[in-house]
Amino acid sequence: MHSVDLIKPDGRELTLYSRRPIPRGLAAPSPRTERVVADPELRWHPLRGEWVAYATHRQDRTFLPPAEYNPLRPMSSGDFPTELPAGDYDVAVFDNLFPTLSLDAVAQPELSVPTRPGRGKCEVVVFTQDPQASLGQLPLERIELILEVWADRERRCRKNPELRYLMAFENRGVEVGVTLHHPHGQIYAYPFVPPVAERELEQQARHLAEKGRGLLESMLESELEEETRVIYRGSEAHAFVPVCARYPYELWVLPARPAPSLSKLGASERAELARALKTSLLKLDGLWKRPMPYLLLLRQAPLDGEAHPEAHVHFQIYPALRSPGRLKYLAGTELGAGLFANDSKPEDKARELQAVEVQV
Amino acid sequence: MHSVDLIKPDGRELTLYSRRPIPRGLAAPSPRTERVVADPELRWHPLRGEWVAYATHRQDRTFLPPAEYNPLRPMSSGDFPTELPAGDYDVAVFDNLFPTLSLDAVAQPELSVPTRPGRGKCEVVVFTQDPQASLGQLPLERIELILEVWADRERRCRKNPELRYLMAFENRGVEVGVTLHHPHGQIYAYPFVPPVAERELEQQARHLAEKGRGLLESMLESELEEETRVIYRGSEAHAFVPVCARYPYELWVLPARPAPSLSKLGASERAELARALKTSLLKLDGLWKRPMPYLLLLRQAPLDGEAHPEAHVHFQIYPALRSPGRLKYLAGTELGAGLFANDSKPEDKARELQAVEVQV
Repeated sequence: MHSVDLIKPDGRELTLYSRRPIPRGLAAPSPRTERVVADPELRWHPLRGEWVAYATHRQDRTFLPPAEYNPLRPMSSGDFPTELPAGDYDVAVFDNLFPTLSLDAVAQPELSVPTRPGRGKCEVVVFTQDPQASLGQLPLERIELILEVWADRERRCRKNPELRYLMAFENRGVEVGVTLHHPHGQIYAYPFVPPVAERELEQQARHLAEKGRGLLESMLESELEEETRVIYRGSEAHAFVPVCARYPYELWVLPARPAPSLSKLGASERAELARALKTSLLKLDGLWKRPMPYLLLLRQAPLDGEAHPEAHVHFQIYPALRSPGRLKYLAGTELGAGLFANDSKPEDKARELQAVEVQV
Repeated sequence: MHSVDLIKPDGRELTLYSRRPIPRGLAAPSPRTERVVADPELRWHPLRGEWVAYATHRQDRTFLPPAEYNPLRPMSSGDFPTELPAGDYDVAVFDNLFPTLSLDAVAQPELSVPTRPGRGKCEVVVFTQDPQASLGQLPLERIELILEVWADRERRCRKNPELRYLMAFENRGVEVGVTLHHPHGQIYAYPFVPPVAERELEQQARHLAEKGRGLLESMLESELEEETRVIYRGSEAHAFVPVCARYPYELWVLPARPAPSLSKLGASERAELARALKTSLLKLDGLWKRPMPYLLLLRQAPLDGEAHPEAHVHFQIYPALRSPGRLKYLAGTELGAGLFANDSKPEDKARELQAVEVQV
């Protein structure tokens, strides 16, 4: 993997990644010439026992621009400025123009609840130069490269002791709030392990301590044994609808070996993980022959330098539809109580996905 | 408050409530003649450490029917059967035809994760016979009556030791997944304290133990002192945008006295709580002169018969819009990490709501 680090006129960082050597002399453009003042703050929510981020500069963020104003496409000469230069490269990562968390944050107002600067890092990961593609449609080699890029971002973030957890994710589709159609994901590097990830790590640590074996390893073994919910079965990576799926077509995609993070995977594991992920995404799109809106999350060990034998790197995919025209809404019982109501059995939804034929 | 208990042809229970004596001889109709077979199951989600409910009969639930097929309006003679009889009453509560939890549940399949029958109770609370009204538009006396109805349901559920937590809520607007427009709320009575309520009760208990004072009492005191985020200030009940709001126009509405549940409020407290709630809802609708979609939650003590001095009954309102045409989506960082990103300051949103004039 080749990469080049550039600085935008407004001071933000851009890295270009490619399988081929990247041409010299590429300049990093920006839609803005002046640095966006991002000074997010965190306030403690004493009733929920969690932090909430306030990022008012995000009110101005770009919202579904027409194709000619797509800021994620490479900029041609004479063009309005986008986020990316024209040139021969595959994937790009840059600092989000409208970050929820920023390493520049200093604000810490005095309030009746504890506050702290909203420090952290928000990055945009552009998967391809083609605005019409989608993550699942990209060639396997590209998806492998994206896995390597995420691993590279993880290694970079590990060097900053302020950053404690990296979550890569993709919001896909206007139904989940996407504001730009060009295929891209995001990275949030948090100054603490955020509550949902913390909870899952605690559950994994407890299972490991009690059973001497990883929770996801145990769950994967049961899924492979039962077979009914398996969507992709490889030798080093798998995908399945979990027995406890909260969303009708929820999928988990993971390597067989309980590696704590992407950066700890070998080349053949990464290649097969890419294949399991691509298969999963194509099956979701093939189900009703329409792009499935979804939230894709990467789960891995914190950035704290500890070993984390409990963490088993994996993807969770939450598709937003329960049938071709109906969203799975999160309402009273989900948001208010935390009991998810799924109107379908994971076994039935897995059978539908198993029946979808895909070309990987 | 007068009430009459009736049984529908399919076995479900219906209670009619009124300020006036309810005419005798009303019969409870049902859109179905046969009992809906509802046998929901719960499966344990080992990674999140929470239960998930599976209720496949809910796939057939009524979805935005045309006005003439509104199942929540009183049935006239010769009409197709609805859920409610014609007659002089104000509020109705009946067993949900498509429950997520049911006291009939027995299914407990053997799976690789723990399972249990999805026992509990799901009720529909019809606020008015007028399909065009809304909770906030109802007269104060009606909102007071609804508070009394919720308290009555709480007292009834307390008699069943299987039911451990009651959450009354309203999903309002198609944007939050409403499937019937007629003004109504829902009640879920859970067989355990669900995770979000449990977490909030723990936080309240810890605060009480450490400070000798309730968490919400302390927060309320700070809000009243600071004044900047107060939306309604009464002598016995108040409403404010909390300093740690997760949603741009989030509101909390509560009595000044830390009563653990609605059933423990006196008449004047209830009257003022109704006024604070009505004011809040009208301000949300008045903001952009359009009905604000929202999720309204009632938070109170569990049904376990313990004292729960930490619980301070209150409403949380999560409005779904961040500007007239833009939803606040829950995406990567909210659902995947549990760090909410709010692009506005609670102080600014409170100021907007303060400026909205309403007739209560």
